[in-house]
Amino acid sequence: MNKQELARLAATHPKRYSLPQVFYRDRDVYRHDIEQIFLKSWLYAGHQSEIPEVGDWFLFEFDQESVIIVRSSETEINALLNVCQHRGSRVCVESSGCSKRLTCRYHGWTYDLDGELKAAAHMGESFDKSGIGLKKIHVGMLHGMIFINFAADPAPFSLVKEGLAGCLESYGLENAKVAHRQSYPIASNWKLAVENYTECYHCAPAHPEYSRGHGLAFPGSRSDQLGLDVMGRAAVCGLSDKTVNRMYMDAPAFGADFSYDRYPLIRDHLTGSFDGQPLAPLMGSIKDYDGGTTDLQVGPVTFGLMYCDHVVIYRFTPLGPDTADCDITWLVRGDAEEGVDYDREKLIWLWDVTTHADKTIIERNQKGVNSRYYAPGPLSEMENFTWNFLSWYLQSFRSAA
Amino acid sequence: MNKQELARLAATHPKRYSLPQVFYRDRDVYRHDIEQIFLKSWLYAGHQSEIPEVGDWFLFEFDQESVIIVRSSETEINALLNVCQHRGSRVCVESSGCSKRLTCRYHGWTYDLDGELKAAAHMGESFDKSGIGLKKIHVGMLHGMIFINFAADPAPFSLVKEGLAGCLESYGLENAKVAHRQSYPIASNWKLAVENYTECYHCAPAHPEYSRGHGLAFPGSRSDQLGLDVMGRAAVCGLSDKTVNRMYMDAPAFGADFSYDRYPLIRDHLTGSFDGQPLAPLMGSIKDYDGGTTDLQVGPVTFGLMYCDHVVIYRFTPLGPDTADCDITWLVRGDAEEGVDYDREKLIWLWDVTTHADKTIIERNQKGVNSRYYAPGPLSEMENFTWNFLSWYLQSFRSAA
Amino acid sequence: MNKQELARLAATHPKRYSLPQVFYRDRDVYRHDIEQIFLKSWLYAGHQSEIPEVGDWFLFEFDQESVIIVRSSETEINALLNVCQHRGSRVCVESSGCSKRLTCRYHGWTYDLDGELKAAAHMGESFDKSGIGLKKIHVGMLHGMIFINFAADPAPFSLVKEGLAGCLESYGLENAKVAHRQSYPIASNWKLAVENYTECYHCAPAHPEYSRGHGLAFPGSRSDQLGLDVMGRAAVCGLSDKTVNRMYMDAPAFGADFSYDRYPLIRDHLTGSFDGQPLAPLMGSIKDYDGGTTDLQVGPVTFGLMYCDHVVIYRFTPLGPDTADCDITWLVRGDAEEGVDYDREKLIWLWDVTTHADKTIIERNQKGVNSRYYAPGPLSEMENFTWNFLSWYLQSFRSAA
Repeated sequence: MNKQELARLAATHPKRYSLPQVFYRDRDVYRHDIEQIFLKSWLYAGHQSEIPEVGDWFLFEFDQESVIIVRSSETEINALLNVCQHRGSRVCVESSGCSKRLTCRYHGWTYDLDGELKAAAHMGESFDKSGIGLKKIHVGMLHGMIFINFAADPAPFSLVKEGLAGCLESYGLENAKVAHRQSYPIASNWKLAVENYTECYHCAPAHPEYSRGHGLAFPGSRSDQLGLDVMGRAAVCGLSDKTVNRMYMDAPAFGADFSYDRYPLIRDHLTGSFDGQPLAPLMGSIKDYDGGTTDLQVGPVTFGLMYCDHVVIYRFTPLGPDTADCDITWLVRGDAEEGVDYDREKLIWLWDVTTHADKTIIERNQKGVNSRYYAPGPLSEMENFTWNFLSWYLQSFRSAA
Repeated sequence: MNKQELARLAATHPKRYSLPQVFYRDRDVYRHDIEQIFLKSWLYAGHQSEIPEVGDWFLFEFDQESVIIVRSSETEINALLNVCQHRGSRVCVESSGCSKRLTCRYHGWTYDLDGELKAAAHMGESFDKSGIGLKKIHVGMLHGMIFINFAADPAPFSLVKEGLAGCLESYGLENAKVAHRQSYPIASNWKLAVENYTECYHCAPAHPEYSRGHGLAFPGSRSDQLGLDVMGRAAVCGLSDKTVNRMYMDAPAFGADFSYDRYPLIRDHLTGSFDGQPLAPLMGSIKDYDGGTTDLQVGPVTFGLMYCDHVVIYRFTPLGPDTADCDITWLVRGDAEEGVDYDREKLIWLWDVTTHADKTIIERNQKGVNSRYYAPGPLSEMENFTWNFLSWYLQSFRSAA
Repeated sequence: MNKQELARLAATHPKRYSLPQVFYRDRDVYRHDIEQIFLKSWLYAGHQSEIPEVGDWFLFEFDQESVIIVRSSETEINALLNVCQHRGSRVCVESSGCSKRLTCRYHGWTYDLDGELKAAAHMGESFDKSGIGLKKIHVGMLHGMIFINFAADPAPFSLVKEGLAGCLESYGLENAKVAHRQSYPIASNWKLAVENYTECYHCAPAHPEYSRGHGLAFPGSRSDQLGLDVMGRAAVCGLSDKTVNRMYMDAPAFGADFSYDRYPLIRDHLTGSFDGQPLAPLMGSIKDYDGGTTDLQVGPVTFGLMYCDHVVIYRFTPLGPDTADCDITWLVRGDAEEGVDYDREKLIWLWDVTTHADKTIIERNQKGVNSRYYAPGPLSEMENFTWNFLSWYLQSFRSAA
């Protein structure tokens, strides 16, 4: 469907209704999504603890793109496009590694950790290596979390950092480590996965494991007495009680969304575990469990679930028009020892079982949306954030037309 | 290929030749086939014995569509489109089930067995449930066989029922039960599967198991002495000797084809079995084996093979431009007991082995048709019904242009 | 992308740079490649020893096409398109076989070994079989190697035969036999596979097994002292020291490329084996190992590696826009006995391990080329043949526009 038709469809879409089928299936829409959303937004790549030594790198891949996230010095991390400047081969081919230089295994072209071409055999005397290199894209660091942005001139990452000032410090995320990281492929358009993440209307019907401990599964949990109690205890436990909600339509600039929002755990849960009991040592400078948990968002497709003893980072990316990747990272204190201070299986249990359930329901959603008899339906009062996301998404077609 | 070109190609197609490649591969043709053929025709969904109790349901799926066939009362069966009116999820997700209400597992929206929305939480005070519901499509019942039609205003199913009056009664199909049902996916366009079904030119070369007992494998079997003898015995055995052939170009209305046509079994076969001997108790009020068998057709893609002791229903539907589903149901008397009155393996043997062979030859046909050197070829005298089908199919492009 | 745009892109492409992404991904480009390259070129089908008896046949398949290569008499080999003239089924369905006549298993239409229709039942009295038959395409024989060409009026194969006169005789290829034949599917556009084959810039970085015995892995090997020594010994050993290079831009006619070019083995290797020691009896009339090996090319996508004791034939064909087939045949003397005169595992080791490595690097190349950040890069001095191939390929868009 061409840009004009899509822009018209987006402009006339009724408020608080799900999107027409074309937005979940069409290849032109998919191209729009990549170019107008993903290549212009801050995306979570990983955590600095994954590349502690100079030369350590890992790959971040989505759609047809591959980015090398590499520590180029003790204080700097680069994001380099993984496309050799000779005939286009991938340069790094494993999911992670460590090397002083990045050598393409096809013809041996060799780049330094800043991406500059340092060696290329048999290129003739007139060949000038200077100016040839792996393309560098923007990197933003947030308490040890690495974000990247493909845009030539992206929204300043400082907007996010400043906007979240005073919120994250006590979690000590720069000193955290990755306890587990896992990819969950979902046979759906990426937007159905984000829609699913941004509402808890489905929590009660679909996630008994989550709902038995988390107030958000029920409306009004943020403002009820329990919610107020949690907020009152936050400061004593060393947690911020700030609430910032600058996502999507309310973001300070395109692709630089952020939010920090707390809500109460219920039935005496202290954290997101099977029995509500602690899973790992308290994060950072947190002094005690205050009975709440935190929703974090950075950019349009990265979300965090911040418990007092661990943090779970979600990132949604498209692998194709009808396949999305849900990448989940579990962070614990950097000095926590697996098997001693935490049990990996228990740590990941809640969000692993919940994500498997989400994968199933999102895929059923895509199947239904594929029907020619699907039509946009009305959203509930518990889908406000989803509508915020959808409004913002629809608006992206305005400028594109 | 656009509609005008397709219409021109269809209009100028030489008589009694197979179709040009484009009709077996093109995505526009595929869309035409779904919209102009399948969504306007009576399609076999299943047998009422599959949903005996109120609340029993099963799914009928093809292309991107899913339909819930549900018994809503002791006397009524509904066909409801399986697309939640909230955000489009499939409502029923197993292949069959039983429930008093149909609840979407995503956000809990709940419908009654007529498809009307009965519960939807947190939708706000102004939300009006009335008028919201799963879309209902037309159902037609023929001696216990359930047919559906997606069209808003389909050809009356009464045309089929009246046209077949006096033909099917003695088989007692309303009291039959499903002994076995199986799906055979075929890697071909659906039309190659229907072409295969509608001619017995290939029976002698490709189906030795069928050909050793069925006269239709040889030309003229309906009019030879054996055929006349069978027709003469039919009445005594309680079978109709009527012949009605109102398919395709001869159908009384689009999508409401029907035919009832008998032919002799040979070499003393009494039924479609390995050795020609009975497989199950005589159906309905049939008194004896008359030495013949019956070809039934209802709508453009449902066929029946009616023996005196069992009935086999074939249905062909597209799953995509190059994948078809062949769904086969074996019916026996409702009071026949598996293991006592019939052996399931023996019952299904003939049409299972024949369908496996057909799958192979149809897939080879598609591979050949995919060649840029394929060109339509001349049909034989034993492919008259196939030409009737193809003529009708080509005509569907006339009105569409 | 339409023909005009492709022609413009091809016409303005900078010299000695890899191709833009569109040429490796676009479906219109793929169609161009099939129609303008593959259907007009001489393609290796197999070796006559594979069909020694009258009625022996094997299939050559690529893209959507299937060709029956059949020995129709003691002195003649036919290439027949494997599409039945009735309704288009494949006629031959195994990969090889032997039969006096070719009978379609769908409806029994029967052709003789020249492709002429000899039997078709129930076609009516007015049906005239004469003039109906499997389409024959051109065959060219080169020392027992069978080449085919789909073009109605292809470049004369005599150009190849005459151009290679005096080069191949001593190998006695007409008396050779196939010791092993294997297909290696590669998840890439076919051109990336041919680019890979036509340069040895990647040999040193990617093929240690090849590089330790073959001079071509290093620049200048043909003109250095070792190269001159080998050329000097060739005549004594019964080998031609001619060099002919008439490929791509230098071919005498489109699709009729040929080359014969020798280079030295190194580190005392006598042949392409693990330890450099002989693998099989000397081919044809070759008297001794001269320390060299030969690169052969016939047509644009068939290559040979000719050692004194065995010959390896490579053929690249597309199976789709992003899948190529690399078909490899190992030939030895016709009277060599497996297990006695040669060990099949040892014989195939070098080019099996090398092809597996190539498959990996070619697939990585495709992945990188798929990135929207891929851009054509400069070729090295060791990629002259690749540039010759690419120039010729780009030129094919000129006439097509």
